[in-house]
Amino acid sequence: MNGAHTLLQALLDNGVDVCFTNPGTSEMHTVAALDRVPGMRPVLCLFEGVATGAADGYGRMTGRPACTLLHLGPGLANGLANLHNARRARTPVVNVVGDHALLHKPYDSPLESDIDALAGAVSGWVRRTRDVAALGSDVAEAVARAEEGQVATLIVPADVTWEHTPPQEAVPAGPGTFPDAGEDRIAFVLATGEPTVILLGGDATRERGLRAAARIAAATGARLLCETFPARLERGGGLPEIERLGYLPETADAQLAGARHLVLAGAASPVSFFAYPHRASDLVPEGCDVHQLLGKGVGSPADALEWLAGQLEGIGAPAAPELPRPERPGRPTGALTAESAAQAVGALLPEGAIVVDEANTSGLWLPAATAGAPRHDWLALTGGAIGQGLPVATGAALACPDRPVLCLESDGSAMYTLQALWTQAREGLNVTTVVFDNRAYAVLGMELRQAGGGERGGALFDLSRPPLDFAALAEGMGVPAARAATADEFGALLERGLAEPGPFLVDCVVPRVV
Amino acid sequence: MNGAHTLLQALLDNGVDVCFTNPGTSEMHTVAALDRVPGMRPVLCLFEGVATGAADGYGRMTGRPACTLLHLGPGLANGLANLHNARRARTPVVNVVGDHALLHKPYDSPLESDIDALAGAVSGWVRRTRDVAALGSDVAEAVARAEEGQVATLIVPADVTWEHTPPQEAVPAGPGTFPDAGEDRIAFVLATGEPTVILLGGDATRERGLRAAARIAAATGARLLCETFPARLERGGGLPEIERLGYLPETADAQLAGARHLVLAGAASPVSFFAYPHRASDLVPEGCDVHQLLGKGVGSPADALEWLAGQLEGIGAPAAPELPRPERPGRPTGALTAESAAQAVGALLPEGAIVVDEANTSGLWLPAATAGAPRHDWLALTGGAIGQGLPVATGAALACPDRPVLCLESDGSAMYTLQALWTQAREGLNVTTVVFDNRAYAVLGMELRQAGGGERGGALFDLSRPPLDFAALAEGMGVPAARAATADEFGALLERGLAEPGPFLVDCVVPRVV
Repeated sequence: MNGAHTLLQALLDNGVDVCFTNPGTSEMHTVAALDRVPGMRPVLCLFEGVATGAADGYGRMTGRPACTLLHLGPGLANGLANLHNARRARTPVVNVVGDHALLHKPYDSPLESDIDALAGAVSGWVRRTRDVAALGSDVAEAVARAEEGQVATLIVPADVTWEHTPPQEAVPAGPGTFPDAGEDRIAFVLATGEPTVILLGGDATRERGLRAAARIAAATGARLLCETFPARLERGGGLPEIERLGYLPETADAQLAGARHLVLAGAASPVSFFAYPHRASDLVPEGCDVHQLLGKGVGSPADALEWLAGQLEGIGAPAAPELPRPERPGRPTGALTAESAAQAVGALLPEGAIVVDEANTSGLWLPAATAGAPRHDWLALTGGAIGQGLPVATGAALACPDRPVLCLESDGSAMYTLQALWTQAREGLNVTTVVFDNRAYAVLGMELRQAGGGERGGALFDLSRPPLDFAALAEGMGVPAARAATADEFGALLERGLAEPGPFLVDCVVPRVV
Repeated sequence: MNGAHTLLQALLDNGVDVCFTNPGTSEMHTVAALDRVPGMRPVLCLFEGVATGAADGYGRMTGRPACTLLHLGPGLANGLANLHNARRARTPVVNVVGDHALLHKPYDSPLESDIDALAGAVSGWVRRTRDVAALGSDVAEAVARAEEGQVATLIVPADVTWEHTPPQEAVPAGPGTFPDAGEDRIAFVLATGEPTVILLGGDATRERGLRAAARIAAATGARLLCETFPARLERGGGLPEIERLGYLPETADAQLAGARHLVLAGAASPVSFFAYPHRASDLVPEGCDVHQLLGKGVGSPADALEWLAGQLEGIGAPAAPELPRPERPGRPTGALTAESAAQAVGALLPEGAIVVDEANTSGLWLPAATAGAPRHDWLALTGGAIGQGLPVATGAALACPDRPVLCLESDGSAMYTLQALWTQAREGLNVTTVVFDNRAYAVLGMELRQAGGGERGGALFDLSRPPLDFAALAEGMGVPAARAATADEFGALLERGLAEPGPFLVDCVVPRVV
């Protein structure tokens, strides 16, 4: 019996047995507990505004509250408008919002936000449970307050759900407390040749920063990485190809292992997206010194890197071996998978493309497959709030009408803000959307298995009942579309979408990769 | 040159010339100004999460901010998740949020919310302009702050956009300051026979409250009205039929004209949804005393009404004439219009139905057409934040699996949270959705004409380019659907939807009524 069981059991004990939800990693232990506390009926909604509005409708008809289970601040934000309507209807709603583990919050990881401020705008009562021992009484009070005819919001940190005892309250210092080393100090560190990683962010992921970073790497042997989700990474056409820091902490650990120094060039010190039991949030390896390249007096991170490159060139460090320039893959044939689809993207990506990447788990092979493509920009999911791809592609196409935009979407994320397709049609925007249609919130399925979840929880991440027909959805909003079932079909449709002006959507049916 | 012109011109002067928007009534003067300040490119998005994500994409690619134009707190709330992503991407975004007129805010009208708290969660800079004279410099600072790589939110009250001079800052007292009259006082007022309106809300719109209110009306000649958007109004099957307070202030004025007393039974004192130039927000007529029926000591508003009815029965006031019991209309034939569609709903509404009403302007004829239908519940758009209908219908169907749910939707509102259809399919919910597909945000077109707007502004409320194919959209989410083009077809499809278990959608193509 951990906090998640207590949470569900307390809701049931207080008469709440329907949960409208679109959960995420910070709610995973609660999802896993659904298999052990079977009385709760979970109802999956494809967008949080549906979950909160459904809780309103349920409460209006029964006079009793349903609960929601929402994912952090962005999930709550998506549900706010219908909580506003519920507030005005004086509907009883128990609004459960998962939060990062208490020990993870100081790290300001990408999905961190001010949940209390958001919840306060629609709730008559807000509480954050900080101790698993208080969870039962907090739930009872939330239900009682909701039954007065209002939205009662209970914020439940992830470690409260996975712990059996109160989470340790001591707040770690968090990152960002490094002394301002100054460029001279960093130049010295790099000159020593000690194992160093330079982590690129901000304008250091644009051509000037990348070229300067590559010169530094060549002169000193430092390794280069860039932020997991860069706002705009320039790639291809012979630009230095930069590996991105992995999303999973295990991957990031492997990438950073052995580093004696970490130089932050426009990036924040690396922390995991989420906390996990018995795992540090801070990804900086033991014994690694962090140096923040501030660009003070010289300007932006790219400016600072250029200055450093000038200082370090010719210091006589062993030149890094010239890596073979990556090549474009050939067009794939045979089965359509996330891997063969990535190959087709690599084979067909046109010069000057803007790639908007919300492919999530289906995107595993995209970086390698497109490294040899002509020059392009790569726009990633910076804040981790899904539903960003189609809108960002829309804005990018409007900003750059002469460049092709390729939006690589996953099915679950696409359904958050699918309405963007209509604006693309209305404005005649040159966006080709590929929906990697694996009929699952696959990343969450993976997280659920890690949290020990079973079938009932797993059903919440299954998007196959009913299957979504993305071609019909696109055509319903005036965007021509087609479904690809083989790699050859996908290549042909991708080529067509990229060649034709205006928007086009390819429903790319692929097996899950995790 | 009013504040709206100043706003647009200042944005242009500072290099911001693209506006991603889904505006509403509080932004109408800014929309109207688009015709006089033609350099701004407005881009209509069907959901605010698209507008904010598009502004992120635009900013990432150009390095310059686009602006948004969002409608009050709920519109901002819908855009928050992608503003969160923009914040993490350090994208320059000028986020313009319309607010109620400064003089209207104390009235806590349905769409009032804490915009500052919501904006603060994603913005590096937030300002509320209170004086049209400061608008130019506030815009310049917003752009400058955005260009530092953050979301800069400027909150612009409606009266700042329509004024040429600073709006009067004196804050009116607002409603809700009436002395607690006590039931005895109200009984006396009613017994005098002076012209009195009883405004019903809360549980006074349910059977017990309605029957008690009708007894009071019969005994005293008082007139009954209920809240404009009741959370749950019980109707039909011989229940007393209650007129709803009109949405437009002109309608409400006519309904309340001549009242010497207004008794609030579970409802707030009536205020207009929005402020308009030279119009009071308070809808209580001059010389009308407001009495709040608190139900103190006796319980809820329905309890208090029952007590009052008991006191007043047999006081000998002239009995109100027995009104003819409303009849069901016949099934319509011929052209499909909002009126003939309402007639079909009235003819076919089954016993025990739950009607979720977000039909907006297309719903004009629904109350009269359904007054003679069998017993049903009517769930309205309580907080004015559109996108509520399909989710509330979903929750109501889950709450009451043995009752048919009829969701009467407008096209613009449906596109906010259309994802609810998938949950209806997945859960096999018995919801029949009618989309009144008039290819417009018609209520906004009407408001725009009132604000003196022209063609460029008007284009923002036109949903016909491209037309939305709601049948395709529904089928893309696993909900069977069909389009009706005549009243006969609509009747047949409505009958089919109500008869079949599981969800069904009827795309009901109708001309605009305003």
